Amino acid sequence: MKKGNTVFFKNKPCIESFSAVCGSKEKEGIIGQYADIALDDDMYGESTYEKAECKMLTTAILQCIEKRGMTEKDVDVLISGDLLNQIISASFAARDYDIPFLGVYSACSTMSESIMLGAMLVNAGYVKRAVAATGSHFASAERQYRYPLELGCTRPPQSQWTVTGAGSCMIGKSGKIKIVSATMGKVCDFGVTDVNNMGAAMAPAAADSIMQHLKDTGTQSDDYDMILTGDLGALGSRIVKDLCWEKGFDISKVHVDCGEIIYKVVENEFQGGSGAGCSATVLNSYVLTKMQAGLYKRILFAATGALLSTVSSGQGESIPCISHVVEMEL
Amino acid sequence: MKKGNTVFFKNKPCIESFSAVCGSKEKEGIIGQYADIALDDDMYGESTYEKAECKMLTTAILQCIEKRGMTEKDVDVLISGDLLNQIISASFAARDYDIPFLGVYSACSTMSESIMLGAMLVNAGYVKRAVAATGSHFASAERQYRYPLELGCTRPPQSQWTVTGAGSCMIGKSGKIKIVSATMGKVCDFGVTDVNNMGAAMAPAAADSIMQHLKDTGTQSDDYDMILTGDLGALGSRIVKDLCWEKGFDISKVHVDCGEIIYKVVENEFQGGSGAGCSATVLNSYVLTKMQAGLYKRILFAATGALLSTVSSGQGESIPCISHVVEMEL
Repeated sequence: MKKGNTVFFKNKPCIESFSAVCGSKEKEGIIGQYADIALDDDMYGESTYEKAECKMLTTAILQCIEKRGMTEKDVDVLISGDLLNQIISASFAARDYDIPFLGVYSACSTMSESIMLGAMLVNAGYVKRAVAATGSHFASAERQYRYPLELGCTRPPQSQWTVTGAGSCMIGKSGKIKIVSATMGKVCDFGVTDVNNMGAAMAPAAADSIMQHLKDTGTQSDDYDMILTGDLGALGSRIVKDLCWEKGFDISKVHVDCGEIIYKVVENEFQGGSGAGCSATVLNSYVLTKMQAGLYKRILFAATGALLSTVSSGQGESIPCISHVVEMEL
Repeated sequence: MKKGNTVFFKNKPCIESFSAVCGSKEKEGIIGQYADIALDDDMYGESTYEKAECKMLTTAILQCIEKRGMTEKDVDVLISGDLLNQIISASFAARDYDIPFLGVYSACSTMSESIMLGAMLVNAGYVKRAVAATGSHFASAERQYRYPLELGCTRPPQSQWTVTGAGSCMIGKSGKIKIVSATMGKVCDFGVTDVNNMGAAMAPAAADSIMQHLKDTGTQSDDYDMILTGDLGALGSRIVKDLCWEKGFDISKVHVDCGEIIYKVVENEFQGGSGAGCSATVLNSYVLTKMQAGLYKRILFAATGALLSTVSSGQGESIPCISHVVEMEL
């Protein structure tokens, strides 16, 4: 059932339902018409950015359950995490549900880690249905990782824009979209220390996990309709394609990066979108909708995470990164 | 394989190896003679508290692998998390190993969440061996959650002392100590807002998960040699026993709290020890050594976590808590 770092799911767990909530800037882009809720006000009626982020996540989880015509009683476990310190959005969202909770942290690759774990638990028969969810908010991320918005700092050209949004999906036993396998990522650190250049830091981790997956499964990039990375942005996307090409894997024809496609004019956000909400919203609105309609038949979802903190950067550390890969097919 | 919130492991995954590293204050207490490494200098030769914490965790993982006569190649997955923002200790420890990494966050219940996940993956045959690990450091926790030590703030009488230490165990297929079942915890929030009184905040979560486990497995507290909670401290331990007693479960004869026993004179540390390293070091030194020697035959390990952050408390939120329960027997 395992080869290399890839676990194969014999019982083919399925995506039973999915949902996304996105912010006002994201509404104007590609996911605007696919998200279940597209906000006009990024505060979402709350008094703080953090509470707005938590509300988006809570809503995405609820939508995902309700779209399947179910209630929280039908869900056996909630697997979630987010970018805020001590994953408070996920923990406080979990407080609202009478569902066992597994907290995870994998920075912006939280969506693929949580789907992978959900598929593992469903495939093994431990649970009937798992909900995987994550999200992020531009303003809470800026305040925590960079500067409060009120300071009005300028942003460097290699920076990305943290996506305001949350995505959620239910993993169970019935559905068109099957989760075939998942590759557990290893921590990669190429020595990048520039916290404004996450794409360059994360690209080696994405390349490592994608190539590991192709080796373990004996597939080629052409076997997939899409190899979807999370939030490498424009620069990071170029790097991941180069790194794979150097090792004999040409993913350029099928590679798509959520961060690169999420905004209407990518250049306005410099390198594009980032954050745990980036791949979570793009996957759980645009991509899975198209897949369910039969437009994509087989995809790889390789969200990427930068495992730094303000303290580790302040102490001169480089940025370790990770990418977990999930394979889905109709 | 699942009843209520409890997953039963048919293939009985085992604790193949365990290891703990502890600080100088912990060395004087009960775990001093059982830990593999007991430090005289809590800086562990590093320049910052955070780096010392990470080094303890890295060492505990290495010791655990080496005590089994193995190398990192024999381990299929590392499951870890810690209290620092963005779990940097775990992520940076994982960077040193060529092992797939699953980041988790469950505050001070990280040890039981990671053992539970490890047992799930081994039992399902996804991996042969998983290493579960976590730790904490008094000084890095004080700086992040409360005040820098240099300020010399006084501590209130209901406070606890964050344990300096790290623990790790390997879950595989051979060994005397078998993991029989695990109960996934739900987030409980009884409205406690006092961040200096974690024991009171966490006790309801511990009571909820322990009672859920007893119900799901059809066992009674007397069936266990020990019901081990993580870091409720002296006050929290009284509360958990009361809460269980009120619902008809008398756990008082077999209940032991890691935070209550870890220090030589518990009163000197007010309510006792806390932190992810508290249950991690006590379990992976004192408890598992005694169990391997046949002194305990069947135990419940119910580490508890307070899922707050400085931001959530600052914004007036109460403290949501969780406890995952792992059942082990010879």
